[in-house]
Amino acid sequence: MIPETMTAIELRNYDGPDGLAVTQKPVPRPGRGEVLVKIAAASVNPSDLMFIQGRYGFSKPLPVVGGFEGSGTVVAAGEGLRARYLVGRRVACAVQESGDGTWAEYVRTGADFCVPLRREVTLEQGAMLVVNPFTAWALVDLAQRGGHRFVVQTAAASALGQMMIRLGKTRGIEFINVVRRPAQVALLQELGAKHVLDSSDPDFDRQLAQLCHDLGARLAFDAVAGSLTGRVLSAMPRHSTVTVYGGLSEEACRIEPGQLLFGDKQVNGFWLTPWLRRMNLLKLLATADKVQRALSQELRSEVQARYPIAQGIEGVRQYMANMTAGKVLLLGEAG
Amino acid sequence: MIPETMTAIELRNYDGPDGLAVTQKPVPRPGRGEVLVKIAAASVNPSDLMFIQGRYGFSKPLPVVGGFEGSGTVVAAGEGLRARYLVGRRVACAVQESGDGTWAEYVRTGADFCVPLRREVTLEQGAMLVVNPFTAWALVDLAQRGGHRFVVQTAAASALGQMMIRLGKTRGIEFINVVRRPAQVALLQELGAKHVLDSSDPDFDRQLAQLCHDLGARLAFDAVAGSLTGRVLSAMPRHSTVTVYGGLSEEACRIEPGQLLFGDKQVNGFWLTPWLRRMNLLKLLATADKVQRALSQELRSEVQARYPIAQGIEGVRQYMANMTAGKVLLLGEAG
Repeated sequence: MIPETMTAIELRNYDGPDGLAVTQKPVPRPGRGEVLVKIAAASVNPSDLMFIQGRYGFSKPLPVVGGFEGSGTVVAAGEGLRARYLVGRRVACAVQESGDGTWAEYVRTGADFCVPLRREVTLEQGAMLVVNPFTAWALVDLAQRGGHRFVVQTAAASALGQMMIRLGKTRGIEFINVVRRPAQVALLQELGAKHVLDSSDPDFDRQLAQLCHDLGARLAFDAVAGSLTGRVLSAMPRHSTVTVYGGLSEEACRIEPGQLLFGDKQVNGFWLTPWLRRMNLLKLLATADKVQRALSQELRSEVQARYPIAQGIEGVRQYMANMTAGKVLLLGEAG
Repeated sequence: MIPETMTAIELRNYDGPDGLAVTQKPVPRPGRGEVLVKIAAASVNPSDLMFIQGRYGFSKPLPVVGGFEGSGTVVAAGEGLRARYLVGRRVACAVQESGDGTWAEYVRTGADFCVPLRREVTLEQGAMLVVNPFTAWALVDLAQRGGHRFVVQTAAASALGQMMIRLGKTRGIEFINVVRRPAQVALLQELGAKHVLDSSDPDFDRQLAQLCHDLGARLAFDAVAGSLTGRVLSAMPRHSTVTVYGGLSEEACRIEPGQLLFGDKQVNGFWLTPWLRRMNLLKLLATADKVQRALSQELRSEVQARYPIAQGIEGVRQYMANMTAGKVLLLGEAG
């Protein structure tokens, strides 16, 4: 039943969408501890865009199939209890640091990189389980463990930003939301966000500093980088931390040294991959279960478009042109 | 014996040396817990230059006498055991966050801000005890507590940089020294530094990365800021920290967000003032004793020029024009 070849979107050079090509290639065979997933849907995330431009945390030898996460049904397994256990099951899967990704009709990945989907979770939802919901979960967890009641976040109107606002509410964490445009202020206010500031407002820095001091906000999550990292850091009270988890501005963070010295502030980073890797399997499955339970509520994603794999490059371009309108899904035959 | 008025160098606006004026003003009277020090010598430090330009961690209401540290003899005391105990003693002193500084014939400061000088320590040496030697001591201590065997430092040819190299040797810490000019490479090599890199060398980034990886250097002390902070951070292996303790370039630190995320690296700051404040008096005196014992060896300072207080503005200008040639001392009548 498993065909010899499959349609896949291959990255041939680190040149963004121009480096992608739709191709036919052999369906891989799972090795020990691995499974073969027949893809139902694979999502396009900001991290995918960074990867295909060669700006991600690692690169792979080319050509390679793109896509970090997807969903589908396990149709074959190599040796190993856990791999065999997954055969026939609906899963969300992430891909290993080496090898092909999810933008294909089939993907081979480690059984440890698969999460069985709860019955009420659709395959489409499952294709958007790992990257955004887990990141939102991890960051809100980080804030909660640090005892933070108020947390600044940039790119607050993004899918991930909205998840954090909703998830934070259930955990007693309120976000001070920084967006780039007046329309995004309105959007977030409609969603019930109380504190929304527009960084294009000439009075932004003063307003942010006022709020941070009034509310005692000493932690920020920044997905933008560039000058915004430093502006947020400067607005926060002494002993504050900005945790950078993205670089949407494609610019270096600019930080006034006096903020570090005299303000005793710091800048660090968050990346999902090592966070996931630090968990053992039981902890990962328990967390995945909690994340899935929130998947139709706090951690829901919007979908702006669906493309068959064969037209997927168009989907990548569409997402790149408008990342805030919702996810783009690439659908396999099963999707 | 204490006159009514004294010569002092007053800052009238935060305009650098142009904002300074030599003036006559009343000799202050010490209050409870305070002493009056007849200044022998007061040093000019990079932090003074930042302060008179309004770029330091705090500012004071103007006009105010400049100078953060000095030495001299305690000639009067307010109430309080410790203040009275100091009368007649030679001390090194720092000034309080409010009020006049040491660039004057007399300074009033807290008894807690005075360290009695050991017999073998001269008043000139005492005038250069707090800012540089204590900072070098604190940073090397920080490295040692963190278990770091190899540490990167920028501005390595500075007075402080040279102190850290010498002090590090006695503690088993080796510095990877970053300087800006070929002449500074030669200077540090003559002093016995093994690893010296010139950031103006086109191959600098590769060489630094190689050394950091080979030696496992995961901590850097940066006094320069600007792009150098980010270049050093990028050169270091995963999980590294750059601790910024100065901003000699007068530019914002530029940090690639990918280094924070994917490299799990961080940037923070060190400032002497809170480090000193965290110590109780006994600990401070014990540390001051150790620092003084190293004052003629590892923690020695060079002096490039001495000026009477009345010509002190010229001294500030000379130091600003060439900070690496040695300290400039402003001498009181007793100096």
